[in-house]
Amino acid sequence: MESSSHSSKEEIAKTEEEWSKKAWEILSKVRENSPLIQCITNLVSMDLVANTLLAVGASPAMIISSQEIPDFTPQVNALYVNVGTLSSSLLPAINSAAQIAGKFRIPWVFDPVAAGSSGFRLRACLDLLLLKPTVVRGNGSEIIALSRASCGTTKGADSLHESKDALEAAKSLAQATGAVVAVTGAVDIVTDGKQVIGAHNGVQMMQKITATGCSVTALIAAFVAVDPSHPFEATAAALSVFGIAGYHDCTWPF
Amino acid sequence: MESSSHSSKEEIAKTEEEWSKKAWEILSKVRENSPLIQCITNLVSMDLVANTLLAVGASPAMIISSQEIPDFTPQVNALYVNVGTLSSSLLPAINSAAQIAGKFRIPWVFDPVAAGSSGFRLRACLDLLLLKPTVVRGNGSEIIALSRASCGTTKGADSLHESKDALEAAKSLAQATGAVVAVTGAVDIVTDGKQVIGAHNGVQMMQKITATGCSVTALIAAFVAVDPSHPFEATAAALSVFGIAGYHDCTWPF
Amino acid sequence: MESSSHSSKEEIAKTEEEWSKKAWEILSKVRENSPLIQCITNLVSMDLVANTLLAVGASPAMIISSQEIPDFTPQVNALYVNVGTLSSSLLPAINSAAQIAGKFRIPWVFDPVAAGSSGFRLRACLDLLLLKPTVVRGNGSEIIALSRASCGTTKGADSLHESKDALEAAKSLAQATGAVVAVTGAVDIVTDGKQVIGAHNGVQMMQKITATGCSVTALIAAFVAVDPSHPFEATAAALSVFGIAGYHDCTWPF
Repeated sequence: MESSSHSSKEEIAKTEEEWSKKAWEILSKVRENSPLIQCITNLVSMDLVANTLLAVGASPAMIISSQEIPDFTPQVNALYVNVGTLSSSLLPAINSAAQIAGKFRIPWVFDPVAAGSSGFRLRACLDLLLLKPTVVRGNGSEIIALSRASCGTTKGADSLHESKDALEAAKSLAQATGAVVAVTGAVDIVTDGKQVIGAHNGVQMMQKITATGCSVTALIAAFVAVDPSHPFEATAAALSVFGIAGYHDCTWPF
Repeated sequence: MESSSHSSKEEIAKTEEEWSKKAWEILSKVRENSPLIQCITNLVSMDLVANTLLAVGASPAMIISSQEIPDFTPQVNALYVNVGTLSSSLLPAINSAAQIAGKFRIPWVFDPVAAGSSGFRLRACLDLLLLKPTVVRGNGSEIIALSRASCGTTKGADSLHESKDALEAAKSLAQATGAVVAVTGAVDIVTDGKQVIGAHNGVQMMQKITATGCSVTALIAAFVAVDPSHPFEATAAALSVFGIAGYHDCTWPF
Repeated sequence: MESSSHSSKEEIAKTEEEWSKKAWEILSKVRENSPLIQCITNLVSMDLVANTLLAVGASPAMIISSQEIPDFTPQVNALYVNVGTLSSSLLPAINSAAQIAGKFRIPWVFDPVAAGSSGFRLRACLDLLLLKPTVVRGNGSEIIALSRASCGTTKGADSLHESKDALEAAKSLAQATGAVVAVTGAVDIVTDGKQVIGAHNGVQMMQKITATGCSVTALIAAFVAVDPSHPFEATAAALSVFGIAGYHDCTWPF
């Protein structure tokens, strides 16, 4: 992991050590506190998301009904919202939970899956951005689609997946919304609009398994839950820990 | 496995042997008869529930639509209901299936996931108890929440998870509803309001995997389906078999 | 794999070689083109379906909302429809996607899970057949139920699962609807109403794992997506590749 503001080898090494320590501290806090994470996620990833949270010591709760949110959401330590299998029946529950999170100052993390794939979905995502998510985590295309639609930046379609474009889009989106924005891919990037951090712990094979993106966003929610005043550090730490876990899962014992 | 009414070492040993034989008999009957189990379960656990039933030789059917229940439910050998991801659109289907099960004397098994987490959910669970489930299976907190709400018992919040409280709550709930009540956790308890049995076959690691509770409740449904006049024995046998299967899965080859 | 119109040993051998080459060609095309496959499938199988498509190099998209289909479906390379957990809220989305697929000449593949289990489901399946699926894939009972209801053939209930009946039902259904019809089981059969092919690559154990049928239908969609003018060959190739993958997964290293 390296911060963009450092350049000499020594300074980066020191930073890596500090980051490792920070990541370990937040992970330990998740294990100790077992934060309650409400997940309104898609129909593909529910079990993997739940198992990721259980594995890290958090407590997942898949409460997704509008009728339950006024009672339940005020009690959670973080909210995770994912629009992967969005529908007109789920959207009111998502909006209501995000509003309550905002009202009760509960951190909430937003995964804008396939944000640009329909007008309905893009509008829903833009509306959710207005509800001030603490963190937004997406792949390059998703963050670029959101950034264009909310910040008015335009680029040619051919540059869609280039990581430099994604970085600029992430920074614009972070500045426009106030959220920490994470872009995951070959290299993971986290930005709060000013600072930028890159994490290199991912493995290629993860992209061939469904719901790994959903799972890492849930992990971010757990990390932010125990360190809500430092969402930038918590997000970078969660991405880093997930990447390392994936590295060991995918490369051993094969 | 031991019955609470036995105390000397010899008697327990004899009982354990009898219980093993009983569990094997019911398991064999499931394999031979391949009972059809309708599952209206949550969105997290559907595949694990289906695979648990297939593994034991039963035939799972995830028919969850109100439109299909009048045609389908009368033909099943048992019904499994789980409110994990309850919604206002699913609730009428659950109620309708439970009513048909009652009318056709089909055993049905109820998993009141997170019963106390919202007023909507608690009311839905209490209404379902009035439809006379054959078996109710939950963790300590869930059974205590239901027992308090339906039997009026009150306890301090600090004693919530103690197994002694869960036992008393299970007995009260069984007496009030006529259901066999199972509480799973470090030790599994089954009661019909008079008799109490404890099973010690579980493994700690199961609680770190989502949907193991949902799966064992589905297994209870399969066992009760082939021995509907002995739900107490069938429930204890299912818990015991599931615990043993978990023990082998979780401890080998690691 | 053998064609029913060949009989001598030499001819079959030659055909098997040609089929292997064909299957490899289509598989390679899927890997190169990474076709976008929209999946409106049941709640049990979503992750296994997505992972099957990712494993073969295709790009799955679980877009299931009526609001998104007009924008999204015209862009996909194939549509996969599965009615396993049908509901009155999902059915309009399914019908709308199938209509758009027809209008834009996008191949679509239909998995009529448990077609005969309720009047609601059977009518929904018959309506979908009128929207001209490119391929229909089911087990023997499902194809027989559809064939009886749409072609008026009647048989005694005792012959329900015999593969000879399933073959006749598949041929009638293919002739009546214009679809390629695949029946999977101990032996897989594919027919366009005239030609019949059988594939013997399956393994028994697959039937004890939920959602393998759903997954192979998704694979058919990926194969048809890259070879839309030869759905008969693409279907046979997909079944063959899935069977071989299953053979290796289920028999190694045990």
